[in-house]
Amino acid sequence: MLAVLKPSPAPGFVIGDVPVPEPGPGQVLLKVLATSVCGTDVHLYDWNPWAAARVHPPRVVGHEVCGEVIAWGAGVEGPPLGTRVAVESHLVCGHCDECRRGDFHVCENTRILGVDVDGAFATHLAVPVANAWPVGGGVPADVAAAMEPFGNAVHACSYGELIGRTVVVFGCGPIGCAAIAVARVRGAARVIAVDRNAYRLTLAERMGASAIVRAGDGPADDAIRRAAAGTIDCVLEMSGSPVAVASATRLVRPGGWISLLGIGDGPDVVDLSTDVVMKGLSLYGVAGRRIPATWEQTTAYVRDGVIDVHALITHRFALREIDAAIELMKSGECGKVTLTPE
Amino acid sequence: MLAVLKPSPAPGFVIGDVPVPEPGPGQVLLKVLATSVCGTDVHLYDWNPWAAARVHPPRVVGHEVCGEVIAWGAGVEGPPLGTRVAVESHLVCGHCDECRRGDFHVCENTRILGVDVDGAFATHLAVPVANAWPVGGGVPADVAAAMEPFGNAVHACSYGELIGRTVVVFGCGPIGCAAIAVARVRGAARVIAVDRNAYRLTLAERMGASAIVRAGDGPADDAIRRAAAGTIDCVLEMSGSPVAVASATRLVRPGGWISLLGIGDGPDVVDLSTDVVMKGLSLYGVAGRRIPATWEQTTAYVRDGVIDVHALITHRFALREIDAAIELMKSGECGKVTLTPE
Amino acid sequence: MLAVLKPSPAPGFVIGDVPVPEPGPGQVLLKVLATSVCGTDVHLYDWNPWAAARVHPPRVVGHEVCGEVIAWGAGVEGPPLGTRVAVESHLVCGHCDECRRGDFHVCENTRILGVDVDGAFATHLAVPVANAWPVGGGVPADVAAAMEPFGNAVHACSYGELIGRTVVVFGCGPIGCAAIAVARVRGAARVIAVDRNAYRLTLAERMGASAIVRAGDGPADDAIRRAAAGTIDCVLEMSGSPVAVASATRLVRPGGWISLLGIGDGPDVVDLSTDVVMKGLSLYGVAGRRIPATWEQTTAYVRDGVIDVHALITHRFALREIDAAIELMKSGECGKVTLTPE
Amino acid sequence: MLAVLKPSPAPGFVIGDVPVPEPGPGQVLLKVLATSVCGTDVHLYDWNPWAAARVHPPRVVGHEVCGEVIAWGAGVEGPPLGTRVAVESHLVCGHCDECRRGDFHVCENTRILGVDVDGAFATHLAVPVANAWPVGGGVPADVAAAMEPFGNAVHACSYGELIGRTVVVFGCGPIGCAAIAVARVRGAARVIAVDRNAYRLTLAERMGASAIVRAGDGPADDAIRRAAAGTIDCVLEMSGSPVAVASATRLVRPGGWISLLGIGDGPDVVDLSTDVVMKGLSLYGVAGRRIPATWEQTTAYVRDGVIDVHALITHRFALREIDAAIELMKSGECGKVTLTPE
Repeated sequence: MLAVLKPSPAPGFVIGDVPVPEPGPGQVLLKVLATSVCGTDVHLYDWNPWAAARVHPPRVVGHEVCGEVIAWGAGVEGPPLGTRVAVESHLVCGHCDECRRGDFHVCENTRILGVDVDGAFATHLAVPVANAWPVGGGVPADVAAAMEPFGNAVHACSYGELIGRTVVVFGCGPIGCAAIAVARVRGAARVIAVDRNAYRLTLAERMGASAIVRAGDGPADDAIRRAAAGTIDCVLEMSGSPVAVASATRLVRPGGWISLLGIGDGPDVVDLSTDVVMKGLSLYGVAGRRIPATWEQTTAYVRDGVIDVHALITHRFALREIDAAIELMKSGECGKVTLTPE
Repeated sequence: MLAVLKPSPAPGFVIGDVPVPEPGPGQVLLKVLATSVCGTDVHLYDWNPWAAARVHPPRVVGHEVCGEVIAWGAGVEGPPLGTRVAVESHLVCGHCDECRRGDFHVCENTRILGVDVDGAFATHLAVPVANAWPVGGGVPADVAAAMEPFGNAVHACSYGELIGRTVVVFGCGPIGCAAIAVARVRGAARVIAVDRNAYRLTLAERMGASAIVRAGDGPADDAIRRAAAGTIDCVLEMSGSPVAVASATRLVRPGGWISLLGIGDGPDVVDLSTDVVMKGLSLYGVAGRRIPATWEQTTAYVRDGVIDVHALITHRFALREIDAAIELMKSGECGKVTLTPE
Repeated sequence: MLAVLKPSPAPGFVIGDVPVPEPGPGQVLLKVLATSVCGTDVHLYDWNPWAAARVHPPRVVGHEVCGEVIAWGAGVEGPPLGTRVAVESHLVCGHCDECRRGDFHVCENTRILGVDVDGAFATHLAVPVANAWPVGGGVPADVAAAMEPFGNAVHACSYGELIGRTVVVFGCGPIGCAAIAVARVRGAARVIAVDRNAYRLTLAERMGASAIVRAGDGPADDAIRRAAAGTIDCVLEMSGSPVAVASATRLVRPGGWISLLGIGDGPDVVDLSTDVVMKGLSLYGVAGRRIPATWEQTTAYVRDGVIDVHALITHRFALREIDAAIELMKSGECGKVTLTPE
Repeated sequence: MLAVLKPSPAPGFVIGDVPVPEPGPGQVLLKVLATSVCGTDVHLYDWNPWAAARVHPPRVVGHEVCGEVIAWGAGVEGPPLGTRVAVESHLVCGHCDECRRGDFHVCENTRILGVDVDGAFATHLAVPVANAWPVGGGVPADVAAAMEPFGNAVHACSYGELIGRTVVVFGCGPIGCAAIAVARVRGAARVIAVDRNAYRLTLAERMGASAIVRAGDGPADDAIRRAAAGTIDCVLEMSGSPVAVASATRLVRPGGWISLLGIGDGPDVVDLSTDVVMKGLSLYGVAGRRIPATWEQTTAYVRDGVIDVHALITHRFALREIDAAIELMKSGECGKVTLTPE
């Protein structure tokens, strides 16, 4: 089958021809309907230090995917053949301490699709049945493929009651923009979007931001406070910028909370005593998606178009055009970028 | 009446004679039965920069107190005269945004007894009736006085299910030691106590620590991991040490949590991306006591001696001996220190 | 001042002239801006057995009210004179076991405005400051008056996550209709409204019902299942009908929940083993409003018109027209009925 | 292998010889170390109407079991051979709406071990790996076998904070007695045990009941109130008696809660308006065990002997003595009854 491969431990991808996978015991085989590109795929392409340390080529890459179930492995009794599914990209072990507590999203033995095992930028994909999430035929394939990163946004928005609240979102990539839409649907009265990139701020407005703040190198506290025009209850930190993290703790009101999802390059400097302890803040590290809680909610949001995920998908490529898609991703002038197998 | 006073903006306290307060509308007058000394009182004595910036002498100091209701101000209809009460030291406004959300513990207009208004190191005290918490006649007065700091420990232990968990407590002052006892009663299987002070570690063992670790200047991660002999689910950070805070984020297992209560002198350096986001940790700033939830639970712990608070009270002085009490506090060779008005 | 009075232990109200109340310690004096009529007022008018057993005339009636703070009693320091407030009608004691747990909504010593103490159908009203809830000047007075019953609906909707859920509402009086709107705003995908009264079902549709079911004497299970067209996650029982309560337990899917708010005349017959235990249902008795949590959320819903409460207010009368208002209430051909003092 | 069989659709069991099962894909094969007898097994033995309607003989019976993993089916990668496991008796489908919500305990397609598929009263057993819960080598096999019903008690105790609370337990069979112990460990200040059977009340005292009440045919409200000597916060209803259910709603204080676990023979009559709505009670139907949350907590309780489950195990038989074990179960003069394969 056609597949996007990391062929060797060096930068770049190639279009290759590999055997269609066999679904093993407990797995289903999917015909891939749509995939989308994640920042992680760019790291793999660039072969950055993290990728070099973790990935063992050759590897089929890609992990945001919607498919149709076309075969069952041994011991599998559903979902019915023909079912349209989104895919949880984290393959969990089921027996570590975290899994036993139901904290599958932080399984100690997580293997990631397209990173640790062969992935989704191909015409077919085999995954454990537990990772195949039926979405209903009415959900478009490109939207279903984007449910994986969209789920990160849903997870980040799940740590507090947003009704009537004022929320600041740092970082308006696809997850940040999705979080803006989720926060609005969950009742947030006011959502302030912050980014350095004008394209992304425009997308943030399309997804429902009440106000936007163009950030520079230093803290944007004053501009954000003006845009909030009142108490800031919650920050969703999607940028990974140490400047944003420290701003967040200063900006949130006593008793408020911060969801931390962005990944930065180094340590953060935060005045925990003044800005977290005395103010009684809560900080939540948001890893992956809660399984199944986040998937259940995400499905509710995409079903019947409660949230317009299409507004988030700005560009579409064929699988063979992966180089152009990666190029675009690097420019930052895009939202979610979709790949289709043909 | 006899009272311990900060007479002027300079170090030291004096024993003074001031009028017995009148209970205003909505207040009760208490005959003081017992008080205890807090680290904050030492800061007031020393007239450190925080105290100098906040306190306006002359001021009756002290805020950990048990009293007997002996008079009602206008509009007060209870509790009955003769009722023994512990006292919440934070006087809240009831109308700021935080109070309206029920987050009284982070009221924006909090006035603290013995800091912003006249306090408890005296024979009598007037407080809003909402701050007088009946404890039942069976609770000894010195135990009831210590319910205020004890409540901080109860609050810190309330952010996760401790049954069967392994907990690390950094900082074994009276609140840390109380937290050890609370964690055990809440079902923690193993509690590791960490401090630099040998006296406090002995007290920690008396309060139920499974193992103790003597900390030095650097991180004690390895020694703590050995003492834990398994997964660390939760850290209760009571020390305020930046070294401890960073250790905590490294030590806690994925999906675990940290209660931050200790106050340090400056900013903290923490690798939030690696140690909080990717691990899905939760961090809770613990300010004061939740009103009334924490008081309700604290009462359950002291009633019928579920937790032996007397084991925490290591020294007793008369109010007139305040200088000796402060001296002892500074030595670090003590647990909770009680003062009685006569 | 002008007031609607229950003058003696017998049916009927009179328009009387009574002294403007003095705000006692801890109270504020309100100039009444708008009030609305509750079913309880009809019971008082009719002097039904409950009213006869509880009320001691003469009594100013009425408890749904919006006013402007015009004077403070002793010990009161806010809200500022001129502030527009809604009023929590339950005056709680603050010292019973329930209040000490923060369960003010089930205070054992609750006194109800217009029932146990003089009420709101008048030009002025004195209430404890804790019962006066500032709403912001932008909230119309009639909407603010209706926040008390509206809060019952908000409270009923607070027991489970409604995003993407299918909800059945039994009983489409003002609280049921408000609950329909709240459920939609909280993300319910589908809300089925059930009532015997066609007028109320029309109002239910206006408030956002996805489908309506006209009930008769017997269970309407089949019609409701058809209207739901899928799994029913939750029932909001606002009718008090034993037929509805039993239907609710049969209709809700395993793991679902029921909020019980309606008050009936006698015992209910429910197959708890089959319909609750084996299905793992949760049933929540919904008494009053959680203080302050429900008020905080209710304010978010009325502020900026998130929910169109005006759609719920179908008729308006002057205070002097109380007899006509009560007559209309008895007909069932109305939503919320507002009274204004002049 | 030796097995206890329901050979045909009629009363009684036989000891039979059946093939050792093969572990299918996703299954593990267990060598059975200990089993215990449930009331359900007595229903199967008696071939009561429920059994006759559900079970298709021949069937190996039994579902409370501890075993050692001795082989893996296809696709299984753990737990290691030799691991001691307790067994969740409910085999869930993983794809119904309830499973997708994480409510596995009310899976619509649940198949029960020893009822719908061959069970555990045998020398070997094959189960899905997800149903095999490692318990650690230090947990005795008979205790691990009893973790299934013990888990019901843990689940029932999980619906509210028990610290300092007064709890009434109706029904002192093994689950009720286990719940008494769990409630004490969770901090309940006072636990009142109610049953008609003197033997069981003695067992209840051994498991930690503060007081016992011998029930007759009618409500025992007065005796229970005297035994409680104060507010009753919570009832754990384990009897299935309609008299007990109605008592429970009357006895619990406003804002309290009831866990319903007992299964009765017919409908219940409860005054929901007076006893549930106006009092703001919560009622929780307790089906099975939450997966994995209940198992995780149950493990914490049996590990290191936090709760003395051996005190609950009053009799021991060999598998071949199943008739005597069933006889004893019917007498009611026993706690948990253990069977061992040899």
